[in-house]
Amino acid sequence: MSNKTAEVLCIGTELLLGEITNTNAQFLAQQLAILGISHFYQTVVGDNVSRIQKALAIAAGRSNLIITTGGLGPTADDLTTQTIAEFFDTPLVEHPEIWATIQARFGGREIPPSNRKQALLPKGAAILPNPTGTAPGMIWEPKPGLVVMTFPGVPSELYTMWTETAVPWLKAQGWAGEQIWSRVLLYWGIGESALAEQVDDLLQLSNPTVAPYANYGQARLRITTKAPDRESAMAIIQPIEAEILSRTGEYCYGFDDDTLESVLGKQLRSKGQTLAVAESCTGGWLGQMITSVAGCSDYFWGGVITYSNKAKIDLLEVSPAALAEYGAVSPIVAEQMAKGVKAKLGADWGISITGIAGPGGGTDSKPVGLVYIGLASPDGGVLSFEHKISPSKDRNWIRRVSACYALNHLSKRFVMMHSTDK
Amino acid sequence: MSNKTAEVLCIGTELLLGEITNTNAQFLAQQLAILGISHFYQTVVGDNVSRIQKALAIAAGRSNLIITTGGLGPTADDLTTQTIAEFFDTPLVEHPEIWATIQARFGGREIPPSNRKQALLPKGAAILPNPTGTAPGMIWEPKPGLVVMTFPGVPSELYTMWTETAVPWLKAQGWAGEQIWSRVLLYWGIGESALAEQVDDLLQLSNPTVAPYANYGQARLRITTKAPDRESAMAIIQPIEAEILSRTGEYCYGFDDDTLESVLGKQLRSKGQTLAVAESCTGGWLGQMITSVAGCSDYFWGGVITYSNKAKIDLLEVSPAALAEYGAVSPIVAEQMAKGVKAKLGADWGISITGIAGPGGGTDSKPVGLVYIGLASPDGGVLSFEHKISPSKDRNWIRRVSACYALNHLSKRFVMMHSTDK
Repeated sequence: MSNKTAEVLCIGTELLLGEITNTNAQFLAQQLAILGISHFYQTVVGDNVSRIQKALAIAAGRSNLIITTGGLGPTADDLTTQTIAEFFDTPLVEHPEIWATIQARFGGREIPPSNRKQALLPKGAAILPNPTGTAPGMIWEPKPGLVVMTFPGVPSELYTMWTETAVPWLKAQGWAGEQIWSRVLLYWGIGESALAEQVDDLLQLSNPTVAPYANYGQARLRITTKAPDRESAMAIIQPIEAEILSRTGEYCYGFDDDTLESVLGKQLRSKGQTLAVAESCTGGWLGQMITSVAGCSDYFWGGVITYSNKAKIDLLEVSPAALAEYGAVSPIVAEQMAKGVKAKLGADWGISITGIAGPGGGTDSKPVGLVYIGLASPDGGVLSFEHKISPSKDRNWIRRVSACYALNHLSKRFVMMHSTDK
Repeated sequence: MSNKTAEVLCIGTELLLGEITNTNAQFLAQQLAILGISHFYQTVVGDNVSRIQKALAIAAGRSNLIITTGGLGPTADDLTTQTIAEFFDTPLVEHPEIWATIQARFGGREIPPSNRKQALLPKGAAILPNPTGTAPGMIWEPKPGLVVMTFPGVPSELYTMWTETAVPWLKAQGWAGEQIWSRVLLYWGIGESALAEQVDDLLQLSNPTVAPYANYGQARLRITTKAPDRESAMAIIQPIEAEILSRTGEYCYGFDDDTLESVLGKQLRSKGQTLAVAESCTGGWLGQMITSVAGCSDYFWGGVITYSNKAKIDLLEVSPAALAEYGAVSPIVAEQMAKGVKAKLGADWGISITGIAGPGGGTDSKPVGLVYIGLASPDGGVLSFEHKISPSKDRNWIRRVSACYALNHLSKRFVMMHSTDK
């Protein structure tokens, strides 16, 4: 472990007004932990020269690496670069290569004059390139033993810059200590506390550590250890992972960066099978998730959003009698939707969602949160599943969770069918 | 406006490891803004006595109210209360009423001995009750001109304690100043810097202040003032808002909590018109956005996700000849998709998206980021629009922005048609 320490300084009045969540601080915290760089303080300050300078003075007095986010844009309240330069009593110089990049990015369109200040960096600072935005950051050693790195506040730009430039630089400069290695087990269909109970004794371990957490209704377990390389880390992690899976494997759908949709995509591709979706209350959410996976055109043929009963009849030949007798939110309509879209698109699998997302539209017998998922399989079988999602959750929570259930049912059904293949 | 200032000190190693998002800091920031209490700094520090004390020293030197979160639990790494007491050189005393509450909460079950420390507060501190958890907080004036409030890290407990006890206390003590009032103008089709250029002089104002910011490609302007009530605030904000709109109104689609999809929804409902969508590269994103608005079944009839060419032909009767000659990503296919889905669902409007979301699939003539939007109007007219979204953006950015363009085109077309109504 390096004995140098880093700290994070997030700059932006919008943070102090609570207008945005500070996900950048969390991202950087995770990344510093992975690199084994100690990180003891995070500060948030507004777009104000005097207070940014006071925060810099405190940070420079206790840390060796100051990582700033925000304030690199072209507008008058973007003050980070010039304030840092002033604080270290260093003039700004224009970098023609940044200006050329900005010009190229505008591709002939007129460039607002204020964008020109984005080409300025303190004398001696190196450019931290921003391949996906106009505002580059910098890597600068304003005095011995202190490095300042600046990043824009846009999370996606920060992630790219961090990964492509900052991480290799920190490693090359010997900043990375004994790295922290993690294995994340991803669950669907079991809550965080129920999961924690099943592995209660393992949560007491000190190496590796096992910690449960939850993200949008998905429970996860993270197994973490420190080790010089991946191989030694995995030798510590794997026995515990095996023990955890022996207890909870039926709910574990994937690992690390997997998602329900990426796991399903790999399954379908492995057998050359195709999928079509029919969505009512989710209104396209399921399709959007499936198509967030690059290359999904290999197995996803499309679907229908049958938000109205008319659309269910016109597009899927759902029976008006079933709609009248059982209602749109019913197992039989879910099954007809799944079967209908499978047939319509000639796909191997058809999956459907119909439910009550709220906040209105609930009744005693069909409350908000009631959802049916229909599943039409390659063998001609049609199933439906009922879920009762907590009506205290909001409309979009209910819709997101419904789409996750649908993906998980299909994935489990796929495994079940192919486990008897041989 | 009170000239006293508050700051937020979040205590917890899990924050410095990036294990959780610091939503407490955002909540408190919003709440302080609403109360009109100035708030210039937020700090995060781990569960470490020395560093908590250093952070307290800094905060006590620049603010009048220190609000801490975290570190009130029963375990060994919960250090907040005792560290604050030590810092101000004050002994801890046991509060029998807290102990009684903890006992009642355990309802006869054995109480772990460590819970007893939760009954300790610095001498002179008042209890800040925690009706939904075991760890109460405190309100304490350790020296004249400085108040310390402590809260647990569990967000739901913090919210209740803040609302039920802290807010009434702050108001009764005269902390609440002139409240901060904001009006946010929402833009589509103009970048943050181009927008800022158009109102450059107004960005220099001090009351109200005008600040640009961007969120997922959407530029915004926020007009902010301090005032005792909404009416006086609006009297300050409205002339500036009018001036801004006279310069930039063509790009402004809404205000405050509006979204492109909510604005479109209000428009369609006002004329009793209905909508259907046809999505290729967005795979359901447009439908998902439209159906995120509660009550959208009044105007949204559904749509199709025609991710494959087969689906475009089978579901929308897009001409195979057009697909062969011009390709799926072409104005003519976008128009046929819009027209097809409008006819298929019998809606007043049909809107379509076809494009190349990447990262693969781009060519020299049709690069990643090329998107066509088709729009079929109630009068039978069909239009298409071409967009070239930066290929440096990721797949989901391109898809999200495409869906926003589609909503905005429809909304503007709607206004255009109805402006000649009379």
